[in-house]
Formats: sequence, C-alpha cells, structure tokens
Amino acid sequence: MKKKHIPLDAMEFPRFEGIRTFMRLPHTTNLHGVDFVLAGVPFDTGGTFRVGARFGPSGIRDNSLLLRPYNPVQEIEIFKYCSGIDFGDLPIVPGYLPESHKLIENNVETLLRSNAIPIFMGGDHSISLPILRAIKKKYGPVGLIHFDAHSDLWHGYFDNKDTHGTPFRRAIEENLIDPSVSTQIGLRGPLYDKKDYTMSKDAGLLSITGPELHSIGVLEALSLVKNRIGDKPAYLTFDIDFIDPAYAPGTGTPEAGGFTGYDAISFVRGLKNINFIGFDMVEVMPPYDPAHITSLLAANIIYEFISLVAIQKRNKVN
Amino acid sequence: MKKKHIPLDAMEFPRFEGIRTFMRLPHTTNLHGVDFVLAGVPFDTGGTFRVGARFGPSGIRDNSLLLRPYNPVQEIEIFKYCSGIDFGDLPIVPGYLPESHKLIENNVETLLRSNAIPIFMGGDHSISLPILRAIKKKYGPVGLIHFDAHSDLWHGYFDNKDTHGTPFRRAIEENLIDPSVSTQIGLRGPLYDKKDYTMSKDAGLLSITGPELHSIGVLEALSLVKNRIGDKPAYLTFDIDFIDPAYAPGTGTPEAGGFTGYDAISFVRGLKNINFIGFDMVEVMPPYDPAHITSLLAANIIYEFISLVAIQKRNKVN
Amino acid sequence: MKKKHIPLDAMEFPRFEGIRTFMRLPHTTNLHGVDFVLAGVPFDTGGTFRVGARFGPSGIRDNSLLLRPYNPVQEIEIFKYCSGIDFGDLPIVPGYLPESHKLIENNVETLLRSNAIPIFMGGDHSISLPILRAIKKKYGPVGLIHFDAHSDLWHGYFDNKDTHGTPFRRAIEENLIDPSVSTQIGLRGPLYDKKDYTMSKDAGLLSITGPELHSIGVLEALSLVKNRIGDKPAYLTFDIDFIDPAYAPGTGTPEAGGFTGYDAISFVRGLKNINFIGFDMVEVMPPYDPAHITSLLAANIIYEFISLVAIQKRNKVN
Amino acid sequence: MKKKHIPLDAMEFPRFEGIRTFMRLPHTTNLHGVDFVLAGVPFDTGGTFRVGARFGPSGIRDNSLLLRPYNPVQEIEIFKYCSGIDFGDLPIVPGYLPESHKLIENNVETLLRSNAIPIFMGGDHSISLPILRAIKKKYGPVGLIHFDAHSDLWHGYFDNKDTHGTPFRRAIEENLIDPSVSTQIGLRGPLYDKKDYTMSKDAGLLSITGPELHSIGVLEALSLVKNRIGDKPAYLTFDIDFIDPAYAPGTGTPEAGGFTGYDAISFVRGLKNINFIGFDMVEVMPPYDPAHITSLLAANIIYEFISLVAIQKRNKVN
Amino acid sequence: MKKKHIPLDAMEFPRFEGIRTFMRLPHTTNLHGVDFVLAGVPFDTGGTFRVGARFGPSGIRDNSLLLRPYNPVQEIEIFKYCSGIDFGDLPIVPGYLPESHKLIENNVETLLRSNAIPIFMGGDHSISLPILRAIKKKYGPVGLIHFDAHSDLWHGYFDNKDTHGTPFRRAIEENLIDPSVSTQIGLRGPLYDKKDYTMSKDAGLLSITGPELHSIGVLEALSLVKNRIGDKPAYLTFDIDFIDPAYAPGTGTPEAGGFTGYDAISFVRGLKNINFIGFDMVEVMPPYDPAHITSLLAANIIYEFISLVAIQKRNKVN
Amino acid sequence: MKKKHIPLDAMEFPRFEGIRTFMRLPHTTNLHGVDFVLAGVPFDTGGTFRVGARFGPSGIRDNSLLLRPYNPVQEIEIFKYCSGIDFGDLPIVPGYLPESHKLIENNVETLLRSNAIPIFMGGDHSISLPILRAIKKKYGPVGLIHFDAHSDLWHGYFDNKDTHGTPFRRAIEENLIDPSVSTQIGLRGPLYDKKDYTMSKDAGLLSITGPELHSIGVLEALSLVKNRIGDKPAYLTFDIDFIDPAYAPGTGTPEAGGFTGYDAISFVRGLKNINFIGFDMVEVMPPYDPAHITSLLAANIIYEFISLVAIQKRNKVN
Repeated sequence: MKKKHIPLDAMEFPRFEGIRTFMRLPHTTNLHGVDFVLAGVPFDTGGTFRVGARFGPSGIRDNSLLLRPYNPVQEIEIFKYCSGIDFGDLPIVPGYLPESHKLIENNVETLLRSNAIPIFMGGDHSISLPILRAIKKKYGPVGLIHFDAHSDLWHGYFDNKDTHGTPFRRAIEENLIDPSVSTQIGLRGPLYDKKDYTMSKDAGLLSITGPELHSIGVLEALSLVKNRIGDKPAYLTFDIDFIDPAYAPGTGTPEAGGFTGYDAISFVRGLKNINFIGFDMVEVMPPYDPAHITSLLAANIIYEFISLVAIQKRNKVN
Repeated sequence: MKKKHIPLDAMEFPRFEGIRTFMRLPHTTNLHGVDFVLAGVPFDTGGTFRVGARFGPSGIRDNSLLLRPYNPVQEIEIFKYCSGIDFGDLPIVPGYLPESHKLIENNVETLLRSNAIPIFMGGDHSISLPILRAIKKKYGPVGLIHFDAHSDLWHGYFDNKDTHGTPFRRAIEENLIDPSVSTQIGLRGPLYDKKDYTMSKDAGLLSITGPELHSIGVLEALSLVKNRIGDKPAYLTFDIDFIDPAYAPGTGTPEAGGFTGYDAISFVRGLKNINFIGFDMVEVMPPYDPAHITSLLAANIIYEFISLVAIQKRNKVN
Repeated sequence: MKKKHIPLDAMEFPRFEGIRTFMRLPHTTNLHGVDFVLAGVPFDTGGTFRVGARFGPSGIRDNSLLLRPYNPVQEIEIFKYCSGIDFGDLPIVPGYLPESHKLIENNVETLLRSNAIPIFMGGDHSISLPILRAIKKKYGPVGLIHFDAHSDLWHGYFDNKDTHGTPFRRAIEENLIDPSVSTQIGLRGPLYDKKDYTMSKDAGLLSITGPELHSIGVLEALSLVKNRIGDKPAYLTFDIDFIDPAYAPGTGTPEAGGFTGYDAISFVRGLKNINFIGFDMVEVMPPYDPAHITSLLAANIIYEFISLVAIQKRNKVN
Repeated sequence: MKKKHIPLDAMEFPRFEGIRTFMRLPHTTNLHGVDFVLAGVPFDTGGTFRVGARFGPSGIRDNSLLLRPYNPVQEIEIFKYCSGIDFGDLPIVPGYLPESHKLIENNVETLLRSNAIPIFMGGDHSISLPILRAIKKKYGPVGLIHFDAHSDLWHGYFDNKDTHGTPFRRAIEENLIDPSVSTQIGLRGPLYDKKDYTMSKDAGLLSITGPELHSIGVLEALSLVKNRIGDKPAYLTFDIDFIDPAYAPGTGTPEAGGFTGYDAISFVRGLKNINFIGFDMVEVMPPYDPAHITSLLAANIIYEFISLVAIQKRNKVN
Repeated sequence: MKKKHIPLDAMEFPRFEGIRTFMRLPHTTNLHGVDFVLAGVPFDTGGTFRVGARFGPSGIRDNSLLLRPYNPVQEIEIFKYCSGIDFGDLPIVPGYLPESHKLIENNVETLLRSNAIPIFMGGDHSISLPILRAIKKKYGPVGLIHFDAHSDLWHGYFDNKDTHGTPFRRAIEENLIDPSVSTQIGLRGPLYDKKDYTMSKDAGLLSITGPELHSIGVLEALSLVKNRIGDKPAYLTFDIDFIDPAYAPGTGTPEAGGFTGYDAISFVRGLKNINFIGFDMVEVMPPYDPAHITSLLAANIIYEFISLVAIQKRNKVN
Repeated sequence: MKKKHIPLDAMEFPRFEGIRTFMRLPHTTNLHGVDFVLAGVPFDTGGTFRVGARFGPSGIRDNSLLLRPYNPVQEIEIFKYCSGIDFGDLPIVPGYLPESHKLIENNVETLLRSNAIPIFMGGDHSISLPILRAIKKKYGPVGLIHFDAHSDLWHGYFDNKDTHGTPFRRAIEENLIDPSVSTQIGLRGPLYDKKDYTMSKDAGLLSITGPELHSIGVLEALSLVKNRIGDKPAYLTFDIDFIDPAYAPGTGTPEAGGFTGYDAISFVRGLKNINFIGFDMVEVMPPYDPAHITSLLAANIIYEFISLVAIQKRNKVN
C-alpha cells in the first residue's frame, strides 16, 4: 500500500507544473503519519563573505522537480516505506541571529515531537547550532557526520560571536555532539594558521581532510566514518562547499580543489544503516548559481538522505 | 473585517520565506468565498520562436513576494474587499496543443462555476483561446482589451494550425469576442505584409498601434478603450511583449521600440470601472530574463488587475 | 594649479588598469587637503529581502573607471577646484547591526573632523542612520533630500528593530534631521496600508511620490525641493531603487514603475547651490546586476554629487 | 590531394569571422562528393521539462569554430580522407510532432540517397525516431550505441504519446534497431519504479548503467560495446545529459552524478573501426548554458564522430 | 515582381532555423543585381576599455531572425523594391590595426564597385575610418550623420595612434567628410576637458549633444540634421552607445543618461529621403549583453537603414 | 617575527571589505624588503579568438579575498618567511603589441632589480615573451615549465606576427629559454596538422600531452618535470586553458577534455624545491566566467605559487 503523503503525479501534472515544494511533496504542517519532513531555514545573517543563502530553500525546491520515487542504486521504492511532506520554512528574523536561533530551536523542538525525521534546507551553517540544541533535548548528544570544506570550529569572529564559522565549536562546548563518534570530511584550502588544521582532531573529532579523501577514496573513507559512528544516533550536516566550485559554484565561501557530485552522492549512499535522526543541507546560494547546478546537486543529495530514511523504515518493517 | 484568504503575514514570515504562491496567497483549489483566483497555465507548445513560457507562472510567483495589500494610487485596501487564492497550475500535456487546449477549456469552465474572477498566468498566447471558449459559455461573446506587440490574428502558420500567433483569429471566427467593443493596443515592428497591419481593423477591432500610442499617450488611449468597451463584460489579455525589451527581455518574440513599465501600469490603472470578467498575462519566459525584471513587472501588472477587481467589489458594496 | 589628489592618468594607465578605487582616485586615509572623500560602508545585515549590498562599494568602484574630470553640463573642471580620495571601506561586523552602526558612527565622526565632504557608498539603507548620528554632532539636525521608492519610515519590522526600512523614523525621533526642510522623492509601489502613504507627510516631510514626479516632471520637483531646503545644511541620500528596475535591476527591493537614469542625473544636476554636507548612495547589489548597469549608473550619479561639491568649492573661491 | 569541401581558411578569415556553419564547413545542400554531412534538426516539442533544444544546432555551430582539421589522438588528417558540409537545418513544424517527424523522416531519406554519412544535431531526443525510420529503409534494422542518463524506453507519457522519453521503445516496436547488438550507456538518477531500471535489459539491449560505468571505467565498457556490435551497421545517438551537469548544464533533464567531458571524448575515440552509418547529438539547450560549455563539448564530441568517419574512409582507401 | 535575393521563407523554415545570416538573407559574395549588402567587420583592436566587438556581427545576425519584410511605419514592402544579401565578414587581422584598416579599405573599395548600398556591422568604431577612405574614392567627401555618446574626434590616445576614439579626427584631416553638412548627435557624459565638448563644433560639425536632444526632442533634431545635409551624399554611422545602457548594455564604453530604443528607431525613420550611400552600426559587444537586447535593438535599427534604402529605390522607380 | 607586508587583518576588515588587491596584500610600488610581488599585465591584443583578458588581473584580485596565510598541505606559514605586495598593473598600450611588449619588458626589468620573485597576472599569453626577455637579462636562458592546452609554438599567424599563439617559438629563437630542461604539459584538442603535435618535441622540449597526463597521472608527470629541470632557474607559465572548461570556462580558446582544479593544484604543489625565479597566470577572461570559478581557481593556483616561494625562503633560512 502506498503511503499517503507522496509527490504530485507526473502523469497528471507535468514536472514543471504546480506550486513548488521539495520533490512536489504535499505542503502541510500536520506531521501526523509523516516519516520524513523537509523544512527550509532561510537564515543567512551568519554569513561572513557572500550572502544569499536565504534563497537556498527555494532554489533547492525549484531544482527538485525531476526527482522520482525509485532509487535504483539503493533499490528502494521510497514511498512504499515512507510518507513525506514539505513543511515550508521555519520563521526567522533576518538580520538578528540570537532571535532567529531561538525561533529555530523552538520550531525544531516542535517538529521533533512527531516521529518524522527532519531534513533541513539552509540557510547558512549557523542554523545547525539551534537545530542541534533542539535535537539534544530529544536524543542527548549525537554523532556528527559533517561534510564541509571548513571545520566551522572557529572560536569566534569579531569578538567571539556566532557566525557560520563557529556552530560546531559551540556544539561541542554545549555537549550537543559527541566528538568521539563524529567525523568531519573534506577540510581543505588556505587557513589562518596551523591550529586551524588540527582544530578538528584537537576537539576530539575524526577529520578526513580533502587531500586525504582525494588520496584514500570514498570507499575507505566510508568505512572510517561507519566504524566511528557505529549505531549511535547520528546527525548529518552537509555544507555544499564540500563540493568543487565547478559542480557547486553557488555558495558563500567556495574553495577550489573539492569533490565531484558523484563523489558526494556515492558517499551518502554508502552511509546506509546508520541510525540517522536528522539531516541538513546548507550554504546553497542561488544568486551565485547561474546554471542552477548547485541547487540541482543539493536536491539530489537530499534525495539520497530521503533514501537513507526509507531504508531505515524498510529495515524496521522487516 | 478582513477577508479570509489573504497573503502570509510578513511580520511572522519574512518575504523570502515559504512555499511560493502568487503574492504569498493561500494555495487551495477550494473556490468557496473567493473573489479572485490566480491560476497558472504553463503551456508553451504554441511558441514559434523562443520557448520556455511554461516556466512563466513560477517566474511570476517568485517575483510577486514583495507585493503588499494597499494600492496607494488606486487608494484601495485590497483584502478589505476581496479574498484571493492561488489555485496552482491547470493540467496540460506538453507538446500536444489540441489535448492541452481541451484540458484548459474544461478546467476554466470548472473555475468559472464559482464567483471568483480568474487571472491566468501563461504560458504562450495560444492559451487565451481555450480560456475564451470557456468564458463564452458563461458570458457569451465578450469585449477584448488586448495589449501586445503583435495582433495574433494570423490565419495560421504552417498549414493553418493553431499557434501563439492565431488565437484571436479563431476567437473571432468562433464568435468568442465581440470586435465592435474590443481594442488591440501596441502593434509594432516589422510585419509580413501590408495586410498584417490592417488585420485588426479589417476584423472589426479598434487598433491603437505602438507608434500611435507613443504619439497620443496613455491618457488619450485610455479614453478610446473605455468609450469602446462601455459596460460590456471585458476580458483583458496582456502579452508582456507589449513592453520594451529593456523592461521585459524575458519573452518569446521581443520587439524593439515598446513601452515602459510605468506606461503599462498607468494604462491598467486607468481601466477602472470596466466590467472585467477575467484577465491573463502571457509570454513571460524566465530563461531569457537574467535579472528577473520581466517577471517582476508582470507580477506588478497582475497586482493592478487584482486592484481593479477590488475596486469592482468595493463599488458593488457601496 | 591642479589639486594634488586626482585620478590616475589615462594616458599612462589605460582605464581598465590598476587597483580599483572610485574614479581611479588615490587610495589613502590621510584627509589632509582633501575636499571630498569616498568611503564604502559595506554593511547589509539590515536587508529584509534580497541581500548582497556589501558588494555595493566594489561594484560601484569597478564601474567608475570611465568617469572623466570635466562635467560638461555643469561646466566644471572638477579637479581645478577639488582634491578627492577613496578612503576605502569603513570597518563593520557582518551580521551584527548595533555593533556595526556604532563602528560606522565612530568612523564617520573621525572622517568629519577633516574638511572633506563625505560621500558614502552602501551597503543597505540602514547605514544612513549612524552616518546621520555622526553628522548631527558636527552640524546639528540637517535637511534630508531623500530619493527612494520607499519612505524607510517604518516603525520597525519584527518587534521594532532596526532594518533598512526604518532609518529615517529613528532619525526623526533622534532629531537628526529637520523634517520641515526635508523632502522625500519617489515613493511608489504597493504598501502595507494607507498610513504608509501618508507617513512621510505625517512626519512633517515633504513627499513627492513617484506618480507625482511622473506627472509634474523633474524641473517642477526641483523647485519644490530647493525652496524647501533653502540654504540649510543638507544631506542627500539616494536609494538606487528610486530608479526603475530596467535601469537598476541590481537592488534589494526593486519596484516597477520607476525613473530613468537620465531623470536621476538631471535631478541631481539641478540641485546645485544647495549647501550639501554629505551624500550617500545605497542598496546597490552587484549579484543581481548581470549587465553591471546598476553600478554604472550609481557611479555616474555619485559623479554628479562630486560635481556639486566642486561647484560649491568654486563658488567659495569666487 | 585535399578534398573539396573543407573548412574556411583561418589564415585568411580569423576563427571568429564568417557566417556560422559547423566547423566553418561550406554550407550547401548539394551532396555530390560529400563524405559526411552535418544537419540540424531543431525540433523540441517532445521535451517534457525544460525546452529550447531548437537552439541546439546554432549553439553547437557557434562553439565549433575552434575545431581544426588534425585529430592528434586518432592521428588522422580529416580532410585528406573526407569532404564534409553543413547542410543547414531540416524543416520542421514547431509544436507539431507527427508532422515534424514525417518531415524529418522524408528529408533524412533524401539525404541518405547520397553516400554521405549523416551527423544530426538536435533538437530533443524524439528526433532519433524518424531518423531511424529513414535509416531502416536503407540499411534495415541497425545496432544502437546510445549514450544517455535515461533509457528513453518509456511506453508513453500522458496517454502513450511520443515524447523525448519514448523514441527507442517505438524503435524496437517498429524493428528499427536490433537490440541484440545494441548498448545503452549511462542510465542513472531517480526513476519512477523498479521496471524503469531493467527496461533496457528487458527489451534485449545491453545496459551499462552510470554507476556501472563509474565502476568499470571507459576501457572495459568499450570492449563490451565493441564485442556486442561487431561489424553490424551502427547508429550512435548521444544525449548530452550523459555528461554531468558541471560539464553540460545546458540540457533539458539534467541528472547529477554523470561523466566528464574527457570520459565522453575518450569513449567515442575508442569506438573506431565500428561500421557507423549515422550519428546524432541531442538535447543541447543553449538558454541554460550561460558559459557555453555544453555546446563547446557537444561540438568536440561531434568532432570525434567526424574523426571516426575519416578513419572509416582511410581504412577503405588502404 | 519580387526581387531575387530575399529572406528565407518562414512558412517552410521556422525563424529559429537555418544558417544564420542577417534577416535570413542569402549569403553570397556575388553582388550582381544586389541593392543593399550587409557585411560584418569584426575588428575590435581599436577598443580602449571593454573589448569583444569582434562578435558584434554574429550577435546582430542571431538577433535579426524576427525581422519581417514589411515596414508598416514607413509603409514599404522592402523586397518589392530591393534585393539584399549578407556578404559575410570582411577579412581582418586581429591585433593589427594598420593591416586591418588596409584590408577593410581594399575590400570596401571592391564592394563599392557594385551598385549595392553597403551596411557594415562592426567591430569597434575605428572601422569607420577605412570605410570612409574607400567611400571617398567613389563619392568624394561625404556628409556624416553620426549617432554616438562620444565625438570620436580625439587627436590620439597614447601617442597619437588610431583607436576607436579617433576615426573622425582622421576623417576630417584626410578630407573624407565634409563637416559643413555633417552632424553629431548624442554627445554626453564626463569628458577629459572643456575642449572635448566643443571639439565637434570647433571641427566644423553641428553637434546636437545628448542633453540638447533630451531637451528639444527627436522631431526638432531631425529637421536640423536634414536641413544641414540637404541632398548631399550621406554616410550614417551609429555607435550603439548613443542608446542608454538599460537598452544597450552590451557595448564597450557605456554612458549613463542616454536614449531609448524608440528614440533611435524614430530618429532613423525620420531620415528618409536623404541620399544615403552607406551605413554602419558599431560597438555592439555580445559578451556584455546577457539578455541579447543590445543586438536585438541594433538589428532593428539596421532594419530601418534597409527601409531607408528601399524608400530611395522606390523613389527612383517612381 | 611577522614580515612587514602582509594581508589586511580579517578580524578588523571582513574579507569583502577594502580596496581590492591580490589576497588583500598592500598595494605599493616600493619593492624594498619584498619577497614576492604580484603584478597585473592586462594586455590582450594578442588574442586571436575571444578577447577580454585585460580584465584578468581585476578578476583574479576579486576572487583572491578568501586566501588565508597558512597552507596546510605545504605546512607553511607564508608570512613567517615572506613579505609580499601587489604592485598594481604594468602600463601597456591597448591595441599596440610591439609598444606594449617593449613597455612590459622595461617594467619587468625594473621589477627584477629588486630581490622580489615576480608573479604576473595576464593578459593573454603573448605577455610571457617580453617577460622572458627581461628575465634573460638577469638570469640568462631559463627552464620553462609550461601548463597549457596549446603549445604556443606557432611560427606566426597572419604573416608571421606575434600573437598569443607564438611566444615560445620566439623565446626559443631568441634563446630566452633552454628547451633541454623545459617541459610543456597538457597539449590537447584538434590541431592544424601533424607537425603541431610534434612541434614541442621538435623544438627540444619535453611534451607531456593532455592524453598522456590523463593516462600517467600527476605524480608520474611531476617526476618527469622535476628530473628535467633539476636545479636550473625555472619560470612557470600557466595558461588557464590547461584546465577543463567545466572548471575554467572564462578563457579565450577553451579546449574540452582538460584537467580539474585539484589536478592543477596538486601538480603545482608537487613542484616544490625547484629554483623558481618567476611565474605567470594568463588567459583568464572574466566576461566569459559568469560564476567566477575561473578567477577563483586562478587565484588559488597563484596562492600555490606563493607557497612555493615561501618554501624556497624557508629552505634558505634553514
């Protein structure tokens, strides 16, 4: 039996039609019977260079229209096992970080009262902090699987304030994540100083740097990540700048020498059977994405997140 | 008392937030108590040069987010007198004109069973034909107020078939419009032959050509249009190529030497107190609109359509 | 005798060469002997819709390279009467409005200790508030000549906070400007409610709305502005959205139905012999300006500000 | 002795000069003494998502100007063995699929009366169907070598009609191709259901899916394709969406996780000594290709098609 | 009887089809029986700021496809009186001005041996110099009607060399034009010094500056130009930067405060019954024209040139 | 102790602030105590296809703002060992190659009187010739390490003149480089004839062609280059078209089938401990780079050049 919340039927409404939700899923704020929920968090006041990630959720939605319900590599008919919705965007106050973080935390807390696995579309990377604060209240400290060209562990920027470069420093300080089961993947590019490179390790996380991943490849990296997280509850956070600017130009602090779309998709596909309790995709910036390929790739990676949720559901059924 | 269907509150959800509907109005297909209804008709198979108007409705919605409820020039608080919704898009079959026209006609007929004034977002100009067919069933032949760089009165193109250049020829043949109360405004640019220029007049319509409008100005043209239509039921159809390519580059057959955005807005504002029973805005083509100004202007012109509806409603109340 | 701070010589360095400063003026922070000073204020956290005005100063500099020293309409050889520099950008803290406003105020105060007339390049419109706070300390309340599609007199947005829509409300409350000699020019577009339209008048300013300016023309409007300001010290603030989106697409909250580049240039040219003590040009947003015409026009309007300064200097000499 | 139809001489006319034909070859419709012929088929009414492939031929021509006559990897001086022309575009009727398909079929039939090997530039993928119908009349069923992210074997879309997703289903039904010697390469991305993934195999073709090709590499895949086709007459059809969106954003239904330009070029280079009787390159869509890299790559792949023809000719001579 | 060289038939080949020539006219270098000839002169080494006008001719051709044979404002069926062709591009040597100017002069001389009126598509404005040198040999000094934001009368730039800013200084020195019957229209924008503004007058030409044209309007300016030229042979040179950057962003040295497309078209239309012996359209730069509106407008202005030729021919017939 | 010429402090001035120099280094022409010097050479008259590399230096500067002082892969704190500046641009005469080459040669000679290692930002590839002429006067013939899709060894183009395709032919003829220690890397794409492919070898250089590099990989290629150059003084010249158009669309003669950004960065990183006496980065063309990724990658490769200089300095210290 098909689940009740499924995408619009492409035989009745061609894929370019309709009010735009992620994957043309129903837009509702009723979470009853929902297995996964997409929610936009269009907050970008934490950005320290280019800005515009507030248009990330709409860019991703616009480029998710071609996603279809069967994932052939994972061999999963998503809506046989899952019901999913697009919740819309969480309210924020543009220009005001503390107020917005509080609003995000509260709204995520509400979302988490349901059984739906949340998938957040940023917004800049600072949004992961209030999300993790809400998550901790439900799950305690979780494992982090973090794709990014940057560690986002800076102590602060301009007098120790919150920015998109600091969320995981705060998350560790507040015991929101458990570094001992967490991994950061993809650190690369010029840094301020030597400590920036070891920050991740110094904080107790495993760091697979960009050059290391280029050298060992996705398969070996996957086994490192999976061994580390084991069966602990895990939160996956994906900064699109993990990807090379050729594949993802539309982001705030692009770094040369990154990864391909297929690298990313393969990596996420390999993360099946981890106990994911939430996901986010951040730093997608449509004004810098003239050919829309960044949003398209982000939508496809989110599709793999959904597939992981569907596999979890199938596993539970079987 | 405020009407029930109103835009999202910008104090709670900043203007860049949320699932994108026209003017952030509610998306529903329930027409009960609705005074005006926006509906996308993303059909573009009738296009003979550039194509892509199937993305017109989403482009217009994306650029309607800044529209606010009070029209100061018309001095009307729209939602004090009106309730409005975004119906979404009418189903069509891309690549298949007759089937799509039939689907459009049927769906418009259904829409017209309500009391809501419909405002259609194309799509190419061929969509006006099935819309007028449905309208005739409710209202009989109506007056046409037609803004366009082209007369769209060609007999056919490639063996007499329907295209975006022929709808009003068909409409006259099928007695859908009453030429004696109708006006075409804006014809300009190179033509096939002499008859193309007099086609409009030969068919019994009043034609105010582009050069004539440049010469007499908006105010004088307005009085010609209003005198002609009187209190007959009127359908306004607006091909965005009426506007100059500097203001509206994103269209299928752009013609140099057109009108400004302010010309268009002023003209539409001047049409108040006409008995409008429907509107359309066609040939907006986002892939050719790199700065989004075409969609933005289209959204603002539609806003003036809505204001005209609100004035009609206020007039009825008073 | 030529003044000492003048643009790079185009006979030695072609116009596309060199480190980019406004008009290829010297970059220095030494204000000794300087008559006008350009300073960037790349703060855009006050933006409530599109963001990216932090790249306004660099966009304007990039498009100022063609500016030459003789203004033929004003018949003034600028550098015969003036010495000018590009100070660079004032420090701000992205994402933090109160801290940034304080930094701006302090730095403007320092600038004003010299005799140089400052010309600020925003940034969003919220920057005018700390600038006016610094100006008041030197000059007391000044007259405001304000070009904008919006009044920017909102009481607040999201619980009464500062945004780019509120600076002149605060400026009036803090007695930074004298409404009785001030004018707002260009208000247009949909509003929240009736009061938004009379806000300006209610606050004691003269408002020449967009439709009024379209109707009366630049010359008549000029005499209204000049009669009102008389010989009082005046601050000119220019929001680029005064201009129509066809001429200035690269801005944060574009409004259809605006003015042409020539309208703006003519208007500013007509303001000669007013006692200007400062200028700003705000809301230029390069990421939304694919053909660079917005920045080009902004640079040309700033060139007219400089010409006004040169005329003031000549008047003093003579 | 050089062949008579060769590109314009770059020593006389720099590469940016002249009326634009493919590779600056002569434009003629006289096929006498011609070994290969380029022909545009700018039909895109079969497109179900983005449209605009009607501008594919002109986009490819514009980006073919840098192609030079010696292929160093294939070690072939093309015009020592071949004479080639640009025929221009085949007539079609935009918006009318059956009429257009008939026109294409008839015109291809005429082309095939010569000895020239045809290379078609689409247009959407539906054009391969009428081309194959014409080819069958000359050659009987042929082997297909099909590069694509999609199988294009759908039974129909919206009541079993022809679209760009159905040509090879029709081709098999009409016995235009021999599945037992044919291969599809590159299937990837989300599907409607499980059967979509096995459709190719179920229809008797060999399918090397995208993930499989990523895993086995070009060399191994080449030997599978070559073993299967043997010396049977072969038709190569190349949907540009085989390529990753980073390399080929300008297409109608882009799929993340695809192949690089070098993958494609190497693969085609490896197909030498197959008995090719025709080629097409489809789904290139210039309006979505802001940096022109899609058309450039398509032109280079077509250059490899031409090189294969030249090698065939040289083989026959020797 | 229709003339023999006419555009491709749009009933057989839709407007987006075919090898791209201006207005889809035949491409031939045979001038027998030809009344007007289009020729590209893609030389841009004279450009002192932005470059890329070498792509002007192809940009204009691409955007001339919609031009149709009847000009309704001039009431002329062009091909009833005229036969026209696209000659292709004249050879030049990129990077080498003297060699290129010599090649242009020689080739124009050859063209002028026919009776065809030439219409050149630049290229930068330096190309007018060798064209005028060739023209002088046939016609002696001619009258110049020159639309431009700049006078292009500089003595030199970097040690008195030729650039796109100097052609008419040279032309006067070499007695190629007769200043006493010539007019420059549109000079505006910042200048190097006072003399730049009077240069035109000092050289004996009539100058209608930009601000003057804004003030007196097209009709009055037309009578000044026509009175001055009388029945002398006239050469019309049109630098696209006469037009405002909103309408023509794609040019090398854009100047704010210019004219609209309709201003330009109306002005050229008004020039009928002048004895034109040649035309050029220069400084169109497609890489800076993301919405293609500059090339589109240039093509439409050239269409008006052709219409003027057709009227001349009709006058001779009658 | 930190060196005196270091980038602007990002804690005081956010990365989007300030007058734009490379990496926000000080702009000065005083070379005292400077270890490396960036200098723009915005000459592009040598370009034979697309032009616009005159905007290369400003494009690269704009995209160098995110570069930070610690290179983690090279484990070097750059400014612990080096002092660096941005000299600005060297004067050239646009449109005049011999004059410009002479100016470049003279200015480079002056630069070389200091101890600073120069890093030039082109401009087209013809600039390497006058640079090498100046270098020879200081160092004698040097080894060349040349990354490029083309050999740039053509004898001439249009009667043996200098263009961007000929600098290294001239350099060999003038004994500026020593072929026996030099390597060209990346030759690929269609050629004029067989000799073009062996030109490099025939001239005595080692050529690692594009297909060869794809086949042997960066590590093996590195050992070939390093063995060949040994400890001879080396000049590295990097034409951005070495990179694939997906990663570097913004260049003049793009060739499909190239290398990734990571390939390039890794290759340059591997060149440490070579005795570099200068570097250039050429053919970056911002008008063809809508997502700015070409300039960003070029800036990152230059960062690796700087890191090589820093390693040289550290080696000398130790």
